[in-house]
Amino acid sequence: MAKPLNIGMIGYGFMGRAHSNAYNRVSDFFDTEYRPVLKAACARNAESVQAFADNWGYESIETDWRELLKRDDIDAVDICTPNNLHKEIAIAAAEAGKMILCEKPLAMNSEEGEEMCQAVEKAGVLNTVWYNYRRIPAVTHAKNIIESGNLGRIFHYRANFLQDWTIAEDLPQGGAALWRLDVAAAGSGVTGDLLAHCIDTAIWLNGKIDNVTAMTETFVKERMHNLTGKVEPVGIDDACSFMCHFNNGSLGLFESTRYARGHKALYTFEINGEHASIKWDLHDLHRLEYFDHRIDGPMRGWRSIHVTDSDHPYMGNWWVPGLQIGYEHSFVHQVKDFLEGVAKGEPTAPTFRDALETQRVCDAVLNSAKSTQWVDV
Amino acid sequence: MAKPLNIGMIGYGFMGRAHSNAYNRVSDFFDTEYRPVLKAACARNAESVQAFADNWGYESIETDWRELLKRDDIDAVDICTPNNLHKEIAIAAAEAGKMILCEKPLAMNSEEGEEMCQAVEKAGVLNTVWYNYRRIPAVTHAKNIIESGNLGRIFHYRANFLQDWTIAEDLPQGGAALWRLDVAAAGSGVTGDLLAHCIDTAIWLNGKIDNVTAMTETFVKERMHNLTGKVEPVGIDDACSFMCHFNNGSLGLFESTRYARGHKALYTFEINGEHASIKWDLHDLHRLEYFDHRIDGPMRGWRSIHVTDSDHPYMGNWWVPGLQIGYEHSFVHQVKDFLEGVAKGEPTAPTFRDALETQRVCDAVLNSAKSTQWVDV
Amino acid sequence: MAKPLNIGMIGYGFMGRAHSNAYNRVSDFFDTEYRPVLKAACARNAESVQAFADNWGYESIETDWRELLKRDDIDAVDICTPNNLHKEIAIAAAEAGKMILCEKPLAMNSEEGEEMCQAVEKAGVLNTVWYNYRRIPAVTHAKNIIESGNLGRIFHYRANFLQDWTIAEDLPQGGAALWRLDVAAAGSGVTGDLLAHCIDTAIWLNGKIDNVTAMTETFVKERMHNLTGKVEPVGIDDACSFMCHFNNGSLGLFESTRYARGHKALYTFEINGEHASIKWDLHDLHRLEYFDHRIDGPMRGWRSIHVTDSDHPYMGNWWVPGLQIGYEHSFVHQVKDFLEGVAKGEPTAPTFRDALETQRVCDAVLNSAKSTQWVDV
Amino acid sequence: MAKPLNIGMIGYGFMGRAHSNAYNRVSDFFDTEYRPVLKAACARNAESVQAFADNWGYESIETDWRELLKRDDIDAVDICTPNNLHKEIAIAAAEAGKMILCEKPLAMNSEEGEEMCQAVEKAGVLNTVWYNYRRIPAVTHAKNIIESGNLGRIFHYRANFLQDWTIAEDLPQGGAALWRLDVAAAGSGVTGDLLAHCIDTAIWLNGKIDNVTAMTETFVKERMHNLTGKVEPVGIDDACSFMCHFNNGSLGLFESTRYARGHKALYTFEINGEHASIKWDLHDLHRLEYFDHRIDGPMRGWRSIHVTDSDHPYMGNWWVPGLQIGYEHSFVHQVKDFLEGVAKGEPTAPTFRDALETQRVCDAVLNSAKSTQWVDV
Repeated sequence: MAKPLNIGMIGYGFMGRAHSNAYNRVSDFFDTEYRPVLKAACARNAESVQAFADNWGYESIETDWRELLKRDDIDAVDICTPNNLHKEIAIAAAEAGKMILCEKPLAMNSEEGEEMCQAVEKAGVLNTVWYNYRRIPAVTHAKNIIESGNLGRIFHYRANFLQDWTIAEDLPQGGAALWRLDVAAAGSGVTGDLLAHCIDTAIWLNGKIDNVTAMTETFVKERMHNLTGKVEPVGIDDACSFMCHFNNGSLGLFESTRYARGHKALYTFEINGEHASIKWDLHDLHRLEYFDHRIDGPMRGWRSIHVTDSDHPYMGNWWVPGLQIGYEHSFVHQVKDFLEGVAKGEPTAPTFRDALETQRVCDAVLNSAKSTQWVDV
Repeated sequence: MAKPLNIGMIGYGFMGRAHSNAYNRVSDFFDTEYRPVLKAACARNAESVQAFADNWGYESIETDWRELLKRDDIDAVDICTPNNLHKEIAIAAAEAGKMILCEKPLAMNSEEGEEMCQAVEKAGVLNTVWYNYRRIPAVTHAKNIIESGNLGRIFHYRANFLQDWTIAEDLPQGGAALWRLDVAAAGSGVTGDLLAHCIDTAIWLNGKIDNVTAMTETFVKERMHNLTGKVEPVGIDDACSFMCHFNNGSLGLFESTRYARGHKALYTFEINGEHASIKWDLHDLHRLEYFDHRIDGPMRGWRSIHVTDSDHPYMGNWWVPGLQIGYEHSFVHQVKDFLEGVAKGEPTAPTFRDALETQRVCDAVLNSAKSTQWVDV
Repeated sequence: MAKPLNIGMIGYGFMGRAHSNAYNRVSDFFDTEYRPVLKAACARNAESVQAFADNWGYESIETDWRELLKRDDIDAVDICTPNNLHKEIAIAAAEAGKMILCEKPLAMNSEEGEEMCQAVEKAGVLNTVWYNYRRIPAVTHAKNIIESGNLGRIFHYRANFLQDWTIAEDLPQGGAALWRLDVAAAGSGVTGDLLAHCIDTAIWLNGKIDNVTAMTETFVKERMHNLTGKVEPVGIDDACSFMCHFNNGSLGLFESTRYARGHKALYTFEINGEHASIKWDLHDLHRLEYFDHRIDGPMRGWRSIHVTDSDHPYMGNWWVPGLQIGYEHSFVHQVKDFLEGVAKGEPTAPTFRDALETQRVCDAVLNSAKSTQWVDV
Repeated sequence: MAKPLNIGMIGYGFMGRAHSNAYNRVSDFFDTEYRPVLKAACARNAESVQAFADNWGYESIETDWRELLKRDDIDAVDICTPNNLHKEIAIAAAEAGKMILCEKPLAMNSEEGEEMCQAVEKAGVLNTVWYNYRRIPAVTHAKNIIESGNLGRIFHYRANFLQDWTIAEDLPQGGAALWRLDVAAAGSGVTGDLLAHCIDTAIWLNGKIDNVTAMTETFVKERMHNLTGKVEPVGIDDACSFMCHFNNGSLGLFESTRYARGHKALYTFEINGEHASIKWDLHDLHRLEYFDHRIDGPMRGWRSIHVTDSDHPYMGNWWVPGLQIGYEHSFVHQVKDFLEGVAKGEPTAPTFRDALETQRVCDAVLNSAKSTQWVDV
């Protein structure tokens, strides 16, 4: 039988659900030495967190995360709070010797992130950040293709993350469901929420980003604030795009917005190499597009790979060819890899340190937008 | 707390996994009066079924389904055996007063199916057949659009289910993983395996089929048989297509094969009405294509609906817009609907009686292929 | 300078325009020994044909095709009349020693077609039939790929031609623009108009068809007739589908209709072989989809070939890679090939004899639909 | 009969062919008061220009454009030379009282462009610049939709033009076919060649651009020069991207490159408004994608409009619904509109003055790339 890895979950929003589902599912599909046990869920509102715990099968609840950290029966803490609480909890958890799985972005900014890195490194606790899109099978497949050297010299990397859910001017900001619109809780708007995903994947696939020039916009300047009950200035960026140089000499172009009518969660990336190119799109996440120039001329074309075969990453453990999995499975895969890391005592990427690099790019992007200058990362 | 509905699972193959997963996750996402409890898994090989039970969390095992049916702690039996065992088990389960969830196709032929229907109706037990594709949200959405009358008079219905996994001549037939190629276990080839899905959806969306003319082919005539160890004639149909008249006056065209190179599980359907048309494709199951002729002329076009919004069928209980679910969720939805049926004491479609209609069309198709004549259903 | 090939055009409808355009532009793009000269246009209505001649640059007009055939300055006759006039004109043209370019379908039926073949063969005049889709570059490319043997043994061929322009019940039949709805002028409905294209391509790509079983339907039973001014029964088939066996052992499935809401001219075909498959769609005629199973497993996918490179058929004479051509260019290519045939004294496929084979399949299809039996071609 | 408009063509490269074809085709399909007559073709090499004239039907040749301008039988001059000759020829042509159709980009830079504008305005001659993509029917359709106000407030405009034809390091620069790689002849690389198209369309669809920040790159630093026979530094930009603010408050993002492996001529644009969004792609130029948020929630989706109906811009003059036209037709449409302008004595957009605005943006882009600062247009 698998050994238990006792999880303490802090927060119960959208990400709390996605992670809980992953813990619950992983052992049905993957054979791992460790098996997650949902030991405790923690949030300030006892009634709400109890309902959450009941729903997902957490054995107990806590209403103060400091109490959770004191418990000996918790091996790993999962931080699903708004961004402004990540640092304090993570540092305390590290000091308590807990492993940490932290929702992205790592922190409000890279100063906070650096403190968090030092804390986990000093404590020597395993840590990971939930940049889940790395583990969509098609994205992992892209990584493998790139690692194989098939693309040759890289010229371009472009990515965007387009949504349209905040166009309505009467949408309020702040509070439980809408903290992502409240700069005090979120730190930034689309930069930390959406671009951070694009940047994490980009660094993973294409290496370090050296410098950036960025542009941000806040289309709706004031919104009712759920916490104050008053109309307040909007502090977040509604849209952010940037251009950059990667360390490998390729050019980058990134865009994210919540004002692209018609796109719900259009995260796409494309990488153009000397010999081959790759494209991917979250709206059809089980497909990878590949172009290989070395194919005989008249037969060249973009190839739509339906990433559902047993020889595709992670897919041998699911269904049969042609039957697609979805968004939630990326979290299951991250749990699976984390459990294997625990068994080996090895870190599971992206670690806090990896995520800090993404945070640095986010900071540079926001600084550039403010200063209208190119900024080194 | 939800009331338990104790499940006894018979069989542990691909469908055993898909159904077990559905029982395990339904309560994480849907609020139902009843909650499935994995009480017992049953199969002849004790070691294998124990491993299966451990993996999915079944509380106990049985190696003889007759013993399973005797147990008082089993409320519902799930039949995931090869097709040739459906009848005997289902009739015995009905006589034992168990609810029955039977994998499709219902039976080896409609005579068997009729006996099974009479058994469950006599016993008055709730019953359903796992034609899971009805509950892909995009397919349910199609049903709702059709029910609204938006399409007007229907002219055409076409569907196909194309695969390519049996092209290799050295693939054997029979035994655990390959019983679908063994006519003694499966009854037919693509007709019962793939066309049955197409027919179930078609009848659901477009009503009764009156008559058919069909063509079948067995491309590879002999294969090594895993049970006899000898090369044996292949008794199944490798490919089957048919044309038909629906009772509503529309024309039908259906095709299935395991020899369509490049298609893993390409189940598609299209329905053409006077005012509007609908298309769907299992390879991108979260999309529904819709064409509305009543739109102003220059603005008309096929609309790709990304069926991931909270006002799409079943989707309000999953993630957020733009984040797709997959194949396995169709089973979760059928369990959810079945549990609601149990709470109300009402049948959950497709019942055995509904599935018998599909079986009758399959029989007519096979008879037509043999006789080269049009055959009434 | 190129030698003149003097063209006499009979008819001035949609096809008269398409062919005239082809004659006018071929020499701008292709170097051929012969160059078409628009010598005379012929139709009963002098005013209309004069306007047509002025528009396209025909040097003269005739109002009686018999007079046209008497002229010594006409080398080749292009027959663009309704189908019921093809036979008489073609036989007379052959007897007058003219080369013939005849619009498809060859004739009202295969008896007529046989007479026409005998006439041109006896006269020894070059002849071709305008099954223009063979010369869409992507379709010619498909032919080349198939000829290379890349597909291996063929299992399936499927094609359809779906339109939606006759759904309105108040659309009349007969007369200039609507003779395709009048059985007396057209001979059949979608079978001769649309399926004939699908069959011509199919035979070209996949060889002889041995036998068929078909289904036809006339959804709107009566329409106002433009010639009689009365509501008359509709004699044509609005929809026709058939299944067949090809001589090479593969199975065929064909469908055409004018009642598929949302499709303007959706001519698609797909061919599935042991090693590779090909798909094409007239709605994006510059693309060819190709799947090659011999590619390394995880890298397999349908490849969308943008057939606009200089090493694609005919494309070296047009623009630059990525810039698509359209429908009309298929006629230009047929003229170019015909002119090369003239220079060599060689036939240009499809000849009358080739087109007769398609006619035979059409006849078998219509006979099968009537008799509800399988019919040998 | 239509009145003649005598054309004098200067240059005979790719654009010389595209324009000549347009002059030859327009009267076959469009009824205009004026009809182009190919009076003279002009280039330095007599033999080459004679072959060109013979091919396209020019009545005469000239080897010195100054001689061409002196001829009384020339009404309009078409400038298809490399960019570095536009200014001198255009100003002389204006002074000679000729109408001018100038290939894009207008000039080497906006100073030159301003001089050219003043010359044509002073002379009072009709003038237009061949930004042909405006007149792809789908693009014109997009313009009409935007003009109707259907999109509401605009938030985003993005466009790219991606090619891959200069990746090979052994491709030389300069001379007849490759002057676009020679900075002395072209003025810039992708900025003037590709981005200029994107900018012209953007200004047309979305209004004035206020300021930009840009990034350029030259991936291959040296190439053999066809004119000097030596390896020379490459002076053009291989890739250029920029971000901008439109005057209407929307954000712009533009990219072009000749190093995007797999893209031949991928010109795409997308515009996101409060109520609706539009996308277009040159690789399937007959389609327009449209998303309308005002549609009932569950029925919303991106709509693929096949722009081939008679009520689509320009399409009533071509074939029948479903039958696509191609790249070259955009030039035919511009000629048609220019001829109508001539008849009315009215300018045909984009005029030199319109094209100067695009040139200004190009200059700002190149200046920004050099200075790494935001630059006002």
